[in-house]
Amino acid sequence: MNRSAEVICVGTELLLGEILNSNAQFLGQELARLGIPHFYQTVVGDNPTRIKRAIATACQRAQLLIFTGGLGPTPDDLTTETLADFFEVPLIEHPEILEDIARKFAQRQRTPSPANAKQALLPKSAEILPNPIGSAPGMIWQPRPELTILTFPGVPQEFHRMWQETAVPYLQAQGWVTAKIYNRVLRFWGVAESTLADQVAPLLALTNPTVAPYASHGEARLRISTRASSREIAEQVIAPIEQQIRQICGLNCFGADEDTLESVVGQLLKQKGQTLAIAESCTGGGLGHRITKVSGSSDYFLGGVISYANPVKESLLSVDPVVLNQAGAVSPVVAEQMALGVRSHLHSTWGVSITGIAGSEGGTAAKPVGLVYIGLADANSVHSFECRISPLGGRDWVRQMSTSFALDFLRRQLLDK
Amino acid sequence: MNRSAEVICVGTELLLGEILNSNAQFLGQELARLGIPHFYQTVVGDNPTRIKRAIATACQRAQLLIFTGGLGPTPDDLTTETLADFFEVPLIEHPEILEDIARKFAQRQRTPSPANAKQALLPKSAEILPNPIGSAPGMIWQPRPELTILTFPGVPQEFHRMWQETAVPYLQAQGWVTAKIYNRVLRFWGVAESTLADQVAPLLALTNPTVAPYASHGEARLRISTRASSREIAEQVIAPIEQQIRQICGLNCFGADEDTLESVVGQLLKQKGQTLAIAESCTGGGLGHRITKVSGSSDYFLGGVISYANPVKESLLSVDPVVLNQAGAVSPVVAEQMALGVRSHLHSTWGVSITGIAGSEGGTAAKPVGLVYIGLADANSVHSFECRISPLGGRDWVRQMSTSFALDFLRRQLLDK
Repeated sequence: MNRSAEVICVGTELLLGEILNSNAQFLGQELARLGIPHFYQTVVGDNPTRIKRAIATACQRAQLLIFTGGLGPTPDDLTTETLADFFEVPLIEHPEILEDIARKFAQRQRTPSPANAKQALLPKSAEILPNPIGSAPGMIWQPRPELTILTFPGVPQEFHRMWQETAVPYLQAQGWVTAKIYNRVLRFWGVAESTLADQVAPLLALTNPTVAPYASHGEARLRISTRASSREIAEQVIAPIEQQIRQICGLNCFGADEDTLESVVGQLLKQKGQTLAIAESCTGGGLGHRITKVSGSSDYFLGGVISYANPVKESLLSVDPVVLNQAGAVSPVVAEQMALGVRSHLHSTWGVSITGIAGSEGGTAAKPVGLVYIGLADANSVHSFECRISPLGGRDWVRQMSTSFALDFLRRQLLDK
Repeated sequence: MNRSAEVICVGTELLLGEILNSNAQFLGQELARLGIPHFYQTVVGDNPTRIKRAIATACQRAQLLIFTGGLGPTPDDLTTETLADFFEVPLIEHPEILEDIARKFAQRQRTPSPANAKQALLPKSAEILPNPIGSAPGMIWQPRPELTILTFPGVPQEFHRMWQETAVPYLQAQGWVTAKIYNRVLRFWGVAESTLADQVAPLLALTNPTVAPYASHGEARLRISTRASSREIAEQVIAPIEQQIRQICGLNCFGADEDTLESVVGQLLKQKGQTLAIAESCTGGGLGHRITKVSGSSDYFLGGVISYANPVKESLLSVDPVVLNQAGAVSPVVAEQMALGVRSHLHSTWGVSITGIAGSEGGTAAKPVGLVYIGLADANSVHSFECRISPLGGRDWVRQMSTSFALDFLRRQLLDK
């Protein structure tokens, strides 16, 4: 079988560069994971003639066409009707879609507009691909033998759920998924991608599993991949290599796959029955935001203080005004006092603080943008750590890296004790 | 002249979803800005047969083909040789490219590998498109009349510089840049895309400027576009339509283009010389994180309290324990007391609070996941607002929407006074 899939993303906003085409990346990863060959992706605007040309080209090359975008209620959402028109099949109204839309709107105390009616139209013989979140369903359609069309809305959350819950089982049932590629991604903090690649150099030459380094959001990663008929068989191939890597890399490896610094820190705190409070200056709440991304974080996270202005450092964190004045807000001693203060006011096991210069303004020669101090206090001790984050990544980057460093310092302390 | 451009991104790593195709987004924005029509983007892997198919398809539709990727030194970098092969033109070695590569390597105390030699080969009659940073130059080539090909490496920094420094002036000289397209994006909160489209329905039929609705991150947007020879002329076309839309939509329109809810709130606070303090429960710092995304937010943002655990609501926000116990943490009265508490402890003009059930756990029939209360206090009054956010989007969505609602409520209050 030499069948292949092709991706067609519909939307003038994509051509205009208003949004980044993350749906194409998601589909690329998913098709690779499922072992479905996929050789072309096309982006086309909200124009029926051009969408038809894209369909005509794709039909000649592939047997599975996956569309994203153009399923909304507005007149420039044209994917469904253009597909029907191309294959010369009439559109049929599905009352159950209208009911579903009305129900979803009612939950939010709203009523559908007349424009939503078109979302209930699908080509005759197409099946509904249910959307558990939004109003726009997709479809599964075989307009002719040996050609399957799947359509999805452009909204990533809706698309991802529809893909996982309905499309993947359908493709499995249709024999598209023959052998899956299984990946295990090991995640690292505190080591550069190139250093990591040097450390595990002999493993990078393996052919089964393969080991490949890459970097994402300042994190180095190693992807261990194998093609296998089941997860069990894949794990037998992957596990010994993972073990070798973990032995080589030690504490720099903080987790795998869905683990994040915040989830790993959360697990460690939970295991120890300990609690955490935080004090944030330049990150303005970003550390708390990350910690509370973890559902169930209330088991160990008590809260904290966003001490953006200096008087708040004094009033809510008991930072000494003399010290604040002499050493400056961005200093090791203030980081330590912030960590001690929040720990003592919130009665937590740990106090973690961040104070730094996020930019774009506020840097000086002595204290440049990207200079950040992390404070860490427990019942017995208080420490501070200096980070120098590249300002070239901009304000968001400095803030994001600061929260990662803070979580990583806490993680290493938790593993140390 | 009905000439158009087409984008072809070459790289198996794009098809596998290993990297996000930010080059396509960059080109989309640039071509739109320059007024060069552009109707299709194609992604194709490192395979000569398939690259040729993509070239053949694109040649039939467009007169300017822009390639990114596949210019490196490794055997799977095939863009240049495949183009030469497709148009049946021999490759010619350019010694000046080899010298440039050797010079760049020498600067980093390295020597080129034999593999770099292929980067000095260009089709006969192609011109070098210089790369000021990396080893891979691109080319400018007219393989036949009425067809221009530009190639760029996939590394974004190199591509962007080559585009700005050489390609844009070339396209200008060749008459591709006749009139630019100017966009104005109006941004809305508190109205669904479909309702908005209904409200401005007659404007959606305009041809100059065009008005198109779309949605992003729960926000509805209207894009007003016009093709004009200068920004001034474009503004004359866009401004009256923008004014009409703003009259129709009132306060639901919170800004345009780069404005965000947090930047608009910041501007209003700054104009009034007022300050803000926040108290966050379920969002865990996410509201503060958003407010402090704005560089210079220290002018009006004092800080806040992350009162994730109930005792913190009592100790740092003076929420009445009896009320907390009777009404529960997720209630209008606790939202109000949190807002009052943080305002009074931090001595700010405004206090804003969020308390809600973000999920995935913790929901009940009476207080389901997605139920969120926003509190808002100033010197004269305190209010609370109930939001019912769809839990289907997941914990991140509920938290993100909560911060948007909080910022929007504050914005409306600031505009009201």
